[in-house]
Amino acid sequence: MDLASAGDLAMLQSMKGKKIIFRLEEGRQYQTHKGMISHRDLIGQPWGRIVETHLGTPFYFLPPTLRDLLLNIRRRSQIIFPKDVGYILLRLSIKPGGRVFEAGTGSGALTTALAWMIGDKGEVVSYERREDMLEIARSNLENLDLAQRVTLRLRDLDQGIQEEPFPSAFLDLPNPELYLKQVRQALITGGTLGVILPTANQVSTLLKEMEEIGFGAIDVSEIMLRFYKPVPARLRPRDRMVAHTGYLTFARRMD
Amino acid sequence: MDLASAGDLAMLQSMKGKKIIFRLEEGRQYQTHKGMISHRDLIGQPWGRIVETHLGTPFYFLPPTLRDLLLNIRRRSQIIFPKDVGYILLRLSIKPGGRVFEAGTGSGALTTALAWMIGDKGEVVSYERREDMLEIARSNLENLDLAQRVTLRLRDLDQGIQEEPFPSAFLDLPNPELYLKQVRQALITGGTLGVILPTANQVSTLLKEMEEIGFGAIDVSEIMLRFYKPVPARLRPRDRMVAHTGYLTFARRMD
Amino acid sequence: MDLASAGDLAMLQSMKGKKIIFRLEEGRQYQTHKGMISHRDLIGQPWGRIVETHLGTPFYFLPPTLRDLLLNIRRRSQIIFPKDVGYILLRLSIKPGGRVFEAGTGSGALTTALAWMIGDKGEVVSYERREDMLEIARSNLENLDLAQRVTLRLRDLDQGIQEEPFPSAFLDLPNPELYLKQVRQALITGGTLGVILPTANQVSTLLKEMEEIGFGAIDVSEIMLRFYKPVPARLRPRDRMVAHTGYLTFARRMD
Amino acid sequence: MDLASAGDLAMLQSMKGKKIIFRLEEGRQYQTHKGMISHRDLIGQPWGRIVETHLGTPFYFLPPTLRDLLLNIRRRSQIIFPKDVGYILLRLSIKPGGRVFEAGTGSGALTTALAWMIGDKGEVVSYERREDMLEIARSNLENLDLAQRVTLRLRDLDQGIQEEPFPSAFLDLPNPELYLKQVRQALITGGTLGVILPTANQVSTLLKEMEEIGFGAIDVSEIMLRFYKPVPARLRPRDRMVAHTGYLTFARRMD
Repeated sequence: MDLASAGDLAMLQSMKGKKIIFRLEEGRQYQTHKGMISHRDLIGQPWGRIVETHLGTPFYFLPPTLRDLLLNIRRRSQIIFPKDVGYILLRLSIKPGGRVFEAGTGSGALTTALAWMIGDKGEVVSYERREDMLEIARSNLENLDLAQRVTLRLRDLDQGIQEEPFPSAFLDLPNPELYLKQVRQALITGGTLGVILPTANQVSTLLKEMEEIGFGAIDVSEIMLRFYKPVPARLRPRDRMVAHTGYLTFARRMD
Repeated sequence: MDLASAGDLAMLQSMKGKKIIFRLEEGRQYQTHKGMISHRDLIGQPWGRIVETHLGTPFYFLPPTLRDLLLNIRRRSQIIFPKDVGYILLRLSIKPGGRVFEAGTGSGALTTALAWMIGDKGEVVSYERREDMLEIARSNLENLDLAQRVTLRLRDLDQGIQEEPFPSAFLDLPNPELYLKQVRQALITGGTLGVILPTANQVSTLLKEMEEIGFGAIDVSEIMLRFYKPVPARLRPRDRMVAHTGYLTFARRMD
Repeated sequence: MDLASAGDLAMLQSMKGKKIIFRLEEGRQYQTHKGMISHRDLIGQPWGRIVETHLGTPFYFLPPTLRDLLLNIRRRSQIIFPKDVGYILLRLSIKPGGRVFEAGTGSGALTTALAWMIGDKGEVVSYERREDMLEIARSNLENLDLAQRVTLRLRDLDQGIQEEPFPSAFLDLPNPELYLKQVRQALITGGTLGVILPTANQVSTLLKEMEEIGFGAIDVSEIMLRFYKPVPARLRPRDRMVAHTGYLTFARRMD
Repeated sequence: MDLASAGDLAMLQSMKGKKIIFRLEEGRQYQTHKGMISHRDLIGQPWGRIVETHLGTPFYFLPPTLRDLLLNIRRRSQIIFPKDVGYILLRLSIKPGGRVFEAGTGSGALTTALAWMIGDKGEVVSYERREDMLEIARSNLENLDLAQRVTLRLRDLDQGIQEEPFPSAFLDLPNPELYLKQVRQALITGGTLGVILPTANQVSTLLKEMEEIGFGAIDVSEIMLRFYKPVPARLRPRDRMVAHTGYLTFARRMD
């Protein structure tokens, strides 16, 4: 039996799927919109229980998964969603001990996933030109004990990339086409570049530049995730879904 | 500049996106349907070049990404696609040094991704009851030097799971509902179970049993991946796409 | 120039796409949530103008399309959406002067579209067993001057279908499998049956019965409609969309 | 019982869904890729039978639906698909006795649906600048006895539109933005314009011009149609689907 300890990250998930994530600390309590839960009533308890607020509202008491952590990250910008993050990991060949470059950091959702997957021996380098965003990302990484795996730099891509070439890189910027030369230099030959962009116009602009600046094997895709109501006798998709997060473009650095 | 060496995994990608993956070996040659390429002409060359067969057909010469490796795995069964694998990694909180349970192994595509991500210090345990499938999976893992991270067992789930409880597990079986009791025992409380199933009927059956056997926080989803023609002045989705691979069900082991 | 007259159906569409439909009448006024508009200021005006409430909120002043009418129908039940209605029309070969059978009527959205398309010489027969629903449907049809094309019957399908066989029929009922024998009798040989159902379980049950009761050439489909933000320089899908309305099953009556 | 007569349009549908449409004529025979069927064996038979070729391959013997007719139209260009046609009908408020304008005619699939729905009292006017296309469309319409409802003109839109203003219009042209002024003149105020375009770039260009030329209430959408394998105990989407036909833009003529 696995017991929750002080210092653990914990998640309360409502019956409707709403999630709250916090770190267990003696003497604290969590105020949900459906009543209060004292940390003391959670610490030392087995995970996987249904717990109730003082108003009697039930919540699943669970350790958060990586996906939960990403969705609940503190943010001041649109984050990259788990459906996209997972695919990006495979396209960039992220692995324990690996190195990967990212710009811009934003609130740090992708940064978190990259840091999680490269492990203690790996390194994520992430550039961001807005100091306020960088601080949010840093705080999010520190909350998950991942900050030591990430080099966060307050730096604009047009100043160039200082680090040794990376096997892969990801851009989450409004105008990635402006920095393709710098990014190309920062990739090993054959390395993979990924880019997420919200509009079709941006993708067109990016594609045009990519061809000219020495990227090849280019593809563009989008991922749709649809949830179902998990009722055995009445299985059906939910009424509404996220229709769009971004277009994903992947390319390889040509020699 | 990064040069291909004998012993490296290499990929030739046609201009239409068709991919061939093989290990570079002195003295060998690769016969594509569009002509022959000698390994000697590739070893020592920089990655990221366009190379030609003796018939003049061009191919990108690239190191394969994890996604390429999964899509090109030798198979005797339907594999789990990268779009699903990436999302599964996040839902199961796979991480370097982690442990994860899987059944059935099948051709080993998900096994490969799990082994890749848990790293040298992690462990994947995978059960498969068909010996021929197990040998294909073993061969696929060995080709990628990942076999030492995976404990492959020729074993039916109804015999129970021998190993210490895992924080997460994944099932790719026709009748997962029959083994939920065993799988529940093999998970820590609060642990995550993922299941992929091709038909809606199977999902209904699974959901019914899950509720009774002590799983909670259940959700069902499906992922659609649509590719675009990457032409800057004529950006549009491709004409056809994969319409379905499987429904993904995730649940947490309740206490 | 086309001027709005008293008695015309008119639509006010907000800049965000919210639509209000009403009939123009001298001496009345329409109270939107953004202020009031007097009918007197609309009657005699050209369609296609932007008009303002007394609070200065602009609205497009337009004749409603059939799609607008369907979406804005007064309802006490889930309606069939235009994306589905359009496809149903083609699958049932609806045409001016044609005859078609429907059960249950519900709020009458599909009934409205069928009545619209079969014209003055055609006939829609629609069964509904709930009197309150039938009255809503009748009221909706009367509002659009379509009631005379529709025979509404307060009648349960298990009582059988009285009318001469139809070339096509559509069912929007929770348990259509219970009435397949009656519906088969009410179709000419080779006639087309369409059914909409919200859950996969219902579709499975229906398919099983259809095969046994003498329907063939069966197919099942679903339609997804995704809207884009119509901004020339930033074209992208909207953030959210309807994920599901219903599964459509079509089959032919075998001899 | 409804019997097939000489002169009727008939459809043979294979068990895999492949469809053949032809007119029944005494003394003829139809050569499928799976053997021959004599018209004599079909004329006088009830619809809704399974018939066999001389090689024993079974086919459903059915009257074609409008959707079948559209999908099987003789074509020299990409046609507008039924999933889109149905929605277009609702957006353009097509009705018996109505008038509608179209350019370019292409192979005439949408023209066919429009002519079908406006009935004997309605009128479709369709412009096409390629004579070969116009002849294909004319031939397709004549095969379905719909030609008398359609005025086909060999005419370029930049020459202007001669007819009295229409309540709705549809454009299936590579550069619709070039003709928006002419089309605007050909619509009544408040009238509806629909446009189908394959690429996102074209939609952006169109939107930009629409705003300037006096169209409002603009929206852009796309429709996805996914088929399922209709097996009761194994309900699941088919493996592959059409990923894209075109983006649909609708707008209203402003005063």
